[in-house]
Amino acid sequence: MIQHLKLEDILQMERFFRMNLINALTGFKSVHLVGTQNNQGVNNLGIFNAVFHLGANPPLIGMIFRPLTIPRHTYENIKSSGHYTLNMVHASFVEMAHQTSAKYEAGTSEFEACGFQPVFKADFKAPFVEASPVKIGLSYVEEHHIAANDTIMVVGRVEHLFFPREILGEKGHLNLEKTGVVAGLGLDSYYELSKLGRYSYARPHEPTKKIQ
Amino acid sequence: MIQHLKLEDILQMERFFRMNLINALTGFKSVHLVGTQNNQGVNNLGIFNAVFHLGANPPLIGMIFRPLTIPRHTYENIKSSGHYTLNMVHASFVEMAHQTSAKYEAGTSEFEACGFQPVFKADFKAPFVEASPVKIGLSYVEEHHIAANDTIMVVGRVEHLFFPREILGEKGHLNLEKTGVVAGLGLDSYYELSKLGRYSYARPHEPTKKIQ
Repeated sequence: MIQHLKLEDILQMERFFRMNLINALTGFKSVHLVGTQNNQGVNNLGIFNAVFHLGANPPLIGMIFRPLTIPRHTYENIKSSGHYTLNMVHASFVEMAHQTSAKYEAGTSEFEACGFQPVFKADFKAPFVEASPVKIGLSYVEEHHIAANDTIMVVGRVEHLFFPREILGEKGHLNLEKTGVVAGLGLDSYYELSKLGRYSYARPHEPTKKIQ
Repeated sequence: MIQHLKLEDILQMERFFRMNLINALTGFKSVHLVGTQNNQGVNNLGIFNAVFHLGANPPLIGMIFRPLTIPRHTYENIKSSGHYTLNMVHASFVEMAHQTSAKYEAGTSEFEACGFQPVFKADFKAPFVEASPVKIGLSYVEEHHIAANDTIMVVGRVEHLFFPREILGEKGHLNLEKTGVVAGLGLDSYYELSKLGRYSYARPHEPTKKIQ
């Protein structure tokens, strides 16, 4: 049985029901722990699931912030320091990573509160998550205000990248399934992955081939 | 052995090696087939992997387009018609979905060329993919030009939503794992998912609990 919902139906839903439903429409998605430091030296850590590819040359990554109607420590720290880290979430610490979404009081480090070890690498001015298998250090480039709902897109450039050498394929692919990194769904669900396949570059009038 | 790469290393890489590597940094991600129609009535279909949640009230979804240095039929059709569809990719048609990324000549419908049946529903002015388990109809809201690399973010509002009734949880969750929808990695790899767990709303000083 197919359910059909219209915009009016969605607008009339109970708030949390609608949040769960609409958050699922963007499907399975990446989850990253974002590490920052404020100008008092407090390390902040938060889980984000709206992080997306913008381009490879230069290497740019976008992410979405909720409206700034309440304090957003991660956003404020990125603006004041100019630097932040993205750290992929491993299946072994999903619960701790989800816990970083709690609204801790200002001055509390989610690293400590949730059991993560911060680590500083390559003189980069934001904390990485020691336990994360893939760590990315970014610098702030630009931002855009989305008029329709007051969210903010921040664009960052990759400055540093750390990953286990054995997951790098000969053509530059990162075989993330070998690291135990998870995907998210909606606001509160996490998934493990198994590879269906990698496919050849698609050309008109030639069927795509499965490579591996 | 941990590999450390700096921005300079990334900028000096061979183009396709860099594309594969940087596209993997945003982790496992959703893949959607985007359906549009041009003003000659030709149905266009393309696979996109930079689609992300912007907000639930109103229900808004963002997506990224590559620079407009070559014709981008999907973007042009969205601008001229004001409407487009997002259709989730099922494991049974991953190969066909990947094939829509081939650069077909103008006037060719990727629906026909790649073996998809278009379907029009609820008087909506863009084609849905008949075979897709979750279909979303959107209207164009606004766009932003990312100065750093000439990409474009398009914001759309959900107007119609179709999904199998049995995947809707009592609190609004969509249990996508029951539909066989896949996740993507990089430019050419696809994955099946298995649920690790759903976790309770996180609050300070209360450990997160696994709900199911």
